[in-house]
Amino acid sequence: MAPLHGVWAVQRDGASLRLTLTCFRLFVAEMSTAAPVPSNGVLHGNEHRFALRVYIEDTDLGGVVYYANYLKFFERARSDLLRVLGINHREAIENGVGVYAVVEVKIKYRRPAKLDDDLIIVSRLMQLRGVSLAIEQKVLRGAELLAEGTVTVAFLSAEGRPKRQPDEWLTKFRGLLSSE
Amino acid sequence: MAPLHGVWAVQRDGASLRLTLTCFRLFVAEMSTAAPVPSNGVLHGNEHRFALRVYIEDTDLGGVVYYANYLKFFERARSDLLRVLGINHREAIENGVGVYAVVEVKIKYRRPAKLDDDLIIVSRLMQLRGVSLAIEQKVLRGAELLAEGTVTVAFLSAEGRPKRQPDEWLTKFRGLLSSE
Amino acid sequence: MAPLHGVWAVQRDGASLRLTLTCFRLFVAEMSTAAPVPSNGVLHGNEHRFALRVYIEDTDLGGVVYYANYLKFFERARSDLLRVLGINHREAIENGVGVYAVVEVKIKYRRPAKLDDDLIIVSRLMQLRGVSLAIEQKVLRGAELLAEGTVTVAFLSAEGRPKRQPDEWLTKFRGLLSSE
Amino acid sequence: MAPLHGVWAVQRDGASLRLTLTCFRLFVAEMSTAAPVPSNGVLHGNEHRFALRVYIEDTDLGGVVYYANYLKFFERARSDLLRVLGINHREAIENGVGVYAVVEVKIKYRRPAKLDDDLIIVSRLMQLRGVSLAIEQKVLRGAELLAEGTVTVAFLSAEGRPKRQPDEWLTKFRGLLSSE
Repeated sequence: MAPLHGVWAVQRDGASLRLTLTCFRLFVAEMSTAAPVPSNGVLHGNEHRFALRVYIEDTDLGGVVYYANYLKFFERARSDLLRVLGINHREAIENGVGVYAVVEVKIKYRRPAKLDDDLIIVSRLMQLRGVSLAIEQKVLRGAELLAEGTVTVAFLSAEGRPKRQPDEWLTKFRGLLSSE
Repeated sequence: MAPLHGVWAVQRDGASLRLTLTCFRLFVAEMSTAAPVPSNGVLHGNEHRFALRVYIEDTDLGGVVYYANYLKFFERARSDLLRVLGINHREAIENGVGVYAVVEVKIKYRRPAKLDDDLIIVSRLMQLRGVSLAIEQKVLRGAELLAEGTVTVAFLSAEGRPKRQPDEWLTKFRGLLSSE
Repeated sequence: MAPLHGVWAVQRDGASLRLTLTCFRLFVAEMSTAAPVPSNGVLHGNEHRFALRVYIEDTDLGGVVYYANYLKFFERARSDLLRVLGINHREAIENGVGVYAVVEVKIKYRRPAKLDDDLIIVSRLMQLRGVSLAIEQKVLRGAELLAEGTVTVAFLSAEGRPKRQPDEWLTKFRGLLSSE
Repeated sequence: MAPLHGVWAVQRDGASLRLTLTCFRLFVAEMSTAAPVPSNGVLHGNEHRFALRVYIEDTDLGGVVYYANYLKFFERARSDLLRVLGINHREAIENGVGVYAVVEVKIKYRRPAKLDDDLIIVSRLMQLRGVSLAIEQKVLRGAELLAEGTVTVAFLSAEGRPKRQPDEWLTKFRGLLSSE
């Protein structure tokens, strides 16, 4: 916060400064005492980053995260990517528009994740077709790479047949592919 | 943002205003582009609140959260409660100090949670004994109560026998019990 | 077994004995080389018994079965009970007839289950109402009681409202309640 | 069972008859009154087959088995393969001998599995090294292929480092590789 302090110091109009400071304090206070929020991912160029913590449910008797649960972590990140892009998957499912289904996964496990670890799932759209997407996904603990893989999902009609994704969604994905 | 606008409008010192605005924009930008964080719970008096979102992994063919998964949500909240209190469960497990094990659960399911729901798990310590805790836990979606229950956990030695919780932890729990 | 009685009764000589032995050997051979079958439960009077084995997916870092997974075990047993009674839950869901949803669980954890344990889930219908059932369920490892509880399920319409269970099903449940 | 006794008593081929009787009685007794048994896999040459049924816990809101749960099915089959070969994984873990950890998975999802489906997991050892195994695994519903993949597992010391598998185990795996 030090740099901000400096900025305030050069302001000379007392009333507005006090008001500004009050607003700022209220804002910070609200951030720290309001109802907590679930983990939300963010986009950095074409890269989506999503944070999660490892809980007991994720571990197995080896004391590390059970191998199938990394696929749950990947799914949470992909769901959040859709959310960040403004794609409402739940609505598409409920209205019979279609549903994403995984058709292929390749994953390598490098190092085990453990209880209480704060992980970042990094997802990057690699390939876009009318009916499918390929996404590269990584599990990081700080700078350490724990697992990495590629997940291919197809868009399916309510009857389970491959279906072209809505044009609006394709446009969003194309924007993602072309950003740095 | 409207109130802040008003504040800026009464400021007349151009240079500092521009600087302030720049800092504020950087701050907001940092909030939205920085590495994301996992969901962290907060204490309000003796009540712990923890947020989570429902993902596909949590649902079943009925289109709602599978009944066993509410126990996972409860566990995440209890784990976070320990973290907020400064109790390192993982370290206690790894060093052979002991581990919390659930000995009893009572839960009533009121309304179903669905995909993408933002839920708050509210936990309140109800009873403290040397070797056990009883915690009341609720699942809320906004003001709606979806599920509520009581979970009793016992502290166990590495050999699986009931064991008195570390005094430092008992002190923290007592503090929680006596706060409003 | 009555038909077999007749068969054995006419056997008095070497030829039929050899035939019997051949059949028996073929039968045993088939048991050991045929496609394996999933675990199927059985009824003993009003008690349903279902076997399952503990796999790595069921355990947590404590080296024992994670507490929420006992609810999965209970569910498998209840699903099998419906199957044994000739109640097709999947069809009822798919045809919009209705679905069973859990409304309450009470469970006590006595002793931990571990990897590779062969468990028996014993289920007993305790209470039958038009729209709901209460079932007592136990987890046994041999003669050892590991967990026990009561699960109340309600029958819900496709819109999620309590609905009277099909009469045919109620008749089956009444039969179960009245058997010893 | 007493009536059967009388019947057999009139047969005169002594030794083999008594053996048959004993086996038969044990068999009938086990089939009709014993506790049910969990699903056990079988070997056909170098192919291991394991049966399982799909329960509600395995499904997601799409009405089909959630993609991560196929990895649980694969794991159950691999655990059973070890059991059938007489390899005690749990003992190896508990005694600090070592533990198998998955290092790579490739899986293609062909058709969805649904509630109540009886599935067969077919596993075939493809590659054997001192510290690792590669296993091809398929999910079948009758003759239909639902999913197929390759799982590579490494044997790890208690400290998490690659370790040569016990010689006795390697001998068993070599026997499996060389059988038709």
